[in-house]
Amino acid sequence: MEHNIDVVIIGAGTAGLYALSQVIQNRKSYLIVQNGELGTTCARVGCMPSKVLIQAAEDYHRRKSFEREGIEGSEGLSVDKEEIMEFVRELRDSFVERVHGNNAKRLKDHMIHGQAEFIKPGQLRVGDDTVNYSSVVISSGSTPVIPAAWQSFSDRIITTDSLFEMEELPESMAVIGLGVIGLEIGQALARLDVAVTGVDMAEKIGGIEDPEIHQSVVDTLSREFPLWLGQAAEVTEEGDMLRVTAGENTVLVDKLLLSMGRKPNLAGMKLENLGIELDQQGVPIHNPNTMQCGKQPVFLAGDVSGERPIMHEAGDEGRIAGTNAARDSIQAFRRKTPLAITFCDPNICTAGATLSALDPDKIAIGQVNMAPVGRALIMTKNRGLIRVYGDKKTGKLLGASLFCIKGENLAHLMAWCIQQDLTVFDLLKMPFYHPVIEEALQAALRDLAGKVEDKPGGMLDIEKL
Amino acid sequence: MEHNIDVVIIGAGTAGLYALSQVIQNRKSYLIVQNGELGTTCARVGCMPSKVLIQAAEDYHRRKSFEREGIEGSEGLSVDKEEIMEFVRELRDSFVERVHGNNAKRLKDHMIHGQAEFIKPGQLRVGDDTVNYSSVVISSGSTPVIPAAWQSFSDRIITTDSLFEMEELPESMAVIGLGVIGLEIGQALARLDVAVTGVDMAEKIGGIEDPEIHQSVVDTLSREFPLWLGQAAEVTEEGDMLRVTAGENTVLVDKLLLSMGRKPNLAGMKLENLGIELDQQGVPIHNPNTMQCGKQPVFLAGDVSGERPIMHEAGDEGRIAGTNAARDSIQAFRRKTPLAITFCDPNICTAGATLSALDPDKIAIGQVNMAPVGRALIMTKNRGLIRVYGDKKTGKLLGASLFCIKGENLAHLMAWCIQQDLTVFDLLKMPFYHPVIEEALQAALRDLAGKVEDKPGGMLDIEKL
Repeated sequence: MEHNIDVVIIGAGTAGLYALSQVIQNRKSYLIVQNGELGTTCARVGCMPSKVLIQAAEDYHRRKSFEREGIEGSEGLSVDKEEIMEFVRELRDSFVERVHGNNAKRLKDHMIHGQAEFIKPGQLRVGDDTVNYSSVVISSGSTPVIPAAWQSFSDRIITTDSLFEMEELPESMAVIGLGVIGLEIGQALARLDVAVTGVDMAEKIGGIEDPEIHQSVVDTLSREFPLWLGQAAEVTEEGDMLRVTAGENTVLVDKLLLSMGRKPNLAGMKLENLGIELDQQGVPIHNPNTMQCGKQPVFLAGDVSGERPIMHEAGDEGRIAGTNAARDSIQAFRRKTPLAITFCDPNICTAGATLSALDPDKIAIGQVNMAPVGRALIMTKNRGLIRVYGDKKTGKLLGASLFCIKGENLAHLMAWCIQQDLTVFDLLKMPFYHPVIEEALQAALRDLAGKVEDKPGGMLDIEKL
Repeated sequence: MEHNIDVVIIGAGTAGLYALSQVIQNRKSYLIVQNGELGTTCARVGCMPSKVLIQAAEDYHRRKSFEREGIEGSEGLSVDKEEIMEFVRELRDSFVERVHGNNAKRLKDHMIHGQAEFIKPGQLRVGDDTVNYSSVVISSGSTPVIPAAWQSFSDRIITTDSLFEMEELPESMAVIGLGVIGLEIGQALARLDVAVTGVDMAEKIGGIEDPEIHQSVVDTLSREFPLWLGQAAEVTEEGDMLRVTAGENTVLVDKLLLSMGRKPNLAGMKLENLGIELDQQGVPIHNPNTMQCGKQPVFLAGDVSGERPIMHEAGDEGRIAGTNAARDSIQAFRRKTPLAITFCDPNICTAGATLSALDPDKIAIGQVNMAPVGRALIMTKNRGLIRVYGDKKTGKLLGASLFCIKGENLAHLMAWCIQQDLTVFDLLKMPFYHPVIEEALQAALRDLAGKVEDKPGGMLDIEKL
C-alpha cells in the first residue's frame, strides 16, 4: 500500500508523542511507524518503575533509623522478593496504561508496525507499505548495550529493559556500568538485601564531573555496596553462577545487571539513503535548537539523538521537531537550563554548567558539608555535599553540583535561578524557611558570596528600601 | 550598680542574637537582659524538637505502606513511649547547645538576668541594676496562652513549652487550638498511637485562608484523628482524667495540649514609662521595615512583635532592629516575600499573598489535585491540592497555597519566583524534571496559564530564539 503523508513520526515514545501533538495542532496529516512494543521508555522501563523500586528500597532501609527514634521491632522486617517485583509491575502497568491507554485507540488508524527503511529523501518503506512524506521525525529511542562476548549467558544478563520483568529479586547481582541507572538500581537492590557488587571500568562514576562531589558519592555509596572502579569486568560461567572479576577483585553472582549505556535505535533504517551527514556514532548531525538534520525536512527527537536522554528534554525535542516538521519555516528554540538528577539517596544532581565547561580562573565555588545541617540530622540524612559555582567577579550563578537529601528539589531552585541570570546576592535575599534543607543551600551560597570580588555593601541577606 | 551602654537587648533568643551581631559589627557597647532560661524558642521548644517528633511519627506511620510494597513484618513494629521522648530531648539538647554553647561563654560578661523595667526613656532597671542606654532592642519573645479557668488542673496541661519535657507519650490527649502547632503536633502524636482529639472553636484551622485547601486539609487530617471544629472546648476533671466537651462531642483524656497561641512577653516591662504608642494587644506600634517604635530609639524584633512568628523573619527583624539601634540614621529594609509552612504530612504552605489580600475579580487561580500525580502515587503521598494565584490579565504570580507532599520545597520555588515578579509564563519555561513533585506545580501553572487573558503566542513551555 502507498501512503502520502505530511509528517511521518518514527517511534511513538515520549518524544514522538510530543511531536505528534504539534503536528495535530498544525492540522497536518500524519503516520506513526512503530517498531516493537508501545509504551514510552520512561513509563515502561525507565523513570517510573525505577522510582517505585527506589521508594520501596528507601522505605525498607529506613528501618535502620527506627531504634534510635524509639520505634521497636525493626529486626522483624523483611523483603518478600516476589511481592516487591509484583508491586513494581503493578504500578508500572498503570503508568504505561496512562500514556498509551488512550493513545492506542486514538492512533490505531494512523499507525503501521515494523522497521522503517528510507528509500530516498521523501520516501520510506515499512514492510509492504511505501510512505511518501513531506517531513519526518525520527524519535525511535535507544536500546541497552550488551557486549557481544557475553551473549552466551544472556539468560543471566539483565538490562533495564528486562529488570522489571524479573519474577523475584536475585540473591546476588553484579551491576556492570555505574552511570545514573547503575547507581540508582545498584543502591536500591543493595538496600533490598540483594548482595550487590558495583563495577565500572572508569574511575569516575555517575557522570559526576566535580571531584569533591565524586569523592563524597564514592565514600557514601561504598558503605552500602562494594564499588570496583577503574578496571573492566571479565565474566565467566561457573556452574549455575557467573564469576565477575575486575583486577584483583572477584565475586560469584546469580545475575548481571548491565547498565553500560544505551545505543540509538538507528540500525536498519538505511539513513544512508537520505544523504544526511552522520556523526561518529552514526547519529545524524542536527541543530539542537531546531532538531533539524542539515537542510533536509528530517528532524531528530528524544533518546535517539544521544544528547539529553531525560524525559523533559525528550518532550522539548519532540515539540521542537514536531512544530518544525509541520510548518514551512524553521524556528529555533532556546533549550532549557541543564538539570540532571540521579535518584540515589542522597540525590546526585547538577544544574546549569558543569565544571568542565567553566574556566577555573574565572569562577568561585561555595561549598557546604551536609554533616551538621540540622534538618538533615533530624532525618538521619546528613551525608554529602553541596557545591555552587559563580562568576568570581560578579557572583552570577553558573552551576551547581549537589549530593544531598532533597537534592532533586534544591536542583530545581538552582536551575530556575540560573535560567534567570541571577547572582548569589539575589538568592541570599530570598526567604529560606527554618528548618529546611534549603538552608544548606543558603550556607553554600553564603560561602560563595564571601569569595566574590564585587560584593555589594550592607547586609547581604536583606535589601535596603 | 549603674551601667552606661550604647545598646540594650532584652532577650537573647533568635531575634536578640541576630540584633547583637549587628551591634557588635558596628562596634557599639551592649548589654543583654535575659529573663529566664537561655536557648531560643526555635531550638528549645519550637521548630527543632517538633521536627524530631514529626520525623519519628512519619517513619512509624510509613509502615502502613510496607505491605503494599512487599515489606513484611510491619505488624511487629511499636513505639516505645519513653524512648521516643528521650530521643527528641537528646537531639533538642544538641541544637540548644549549638545556639548557646558558645554564646553563653562569650556573652557572660555582657548579660544580666532578670525582668527589665523601663524607668523613663533611656533608662531601665533590672533588679538592683540601673541601665542608661542610647537605644534598646526588645526581643523578649512570647509565652503560650493558658486560660485562667484551667489553672486548677494545670499539671495535666501541656503547652509547647512543656511538651518535650514529658517523660513519656500519654495514652490519650486533646489538642485544644488547631493552628500550625496544634496540627503539626496533633498529627504526629496520633501517628505515634496516642489517641488524639483535635478541638478548635473556629471553623477554619491552621490559619488557612484558601477554602479549597482548607477543605482538603480537614478531609485528609480527620482520617487520622477526629477534628471538632466550631465549638469551644469545656474541660472538667473526672477522676484522674480530664473530660473535654465541645458541643455534642465529649471525650476522656489523660492530658491536654494547649496550642491556643502565644502572647508577647511584655508584662512587667512597664512600657508605659517609655511614652510609646501601644496597639490593642499592648504591643508597641512599630514600622516593619525599620522595626522602630514611633520616633524613639526603641526597636522590636522577633515573636514579641506578634507579626511573623517564624525563625527566618525573627532573624531579619533582629538584624534590622540591631543595625538601626547601632547607627545614627534609620534605614528601612524590604521584608521578604511571605512564606509559611506547617510541617504536617502533607505540608500546608503559603507563599506570597494570601487570598484575603487579593481582589477576586483581578486574579485567576490554577489548581491541581494530587491524586493522580505519578511520583506522589509512588510515594503513597498522593493527597492534597495545589492552588496558584496570578494576575488575570498579565499572569504575574501573586501567591500560592499548597497542601501536598514536599510542599515545603515547592513553596520555596514559588516564594522565590514571586519575589522576582515573574509571570506564570516565565515559570513554564523552566526545567521540570521527571518524575518529581515539581511536575504537580507545573500542572497547576498550566491550568493558571490557560485562564490568563494576555497569553503570549506560540508554545508556552519553550522560548523562541
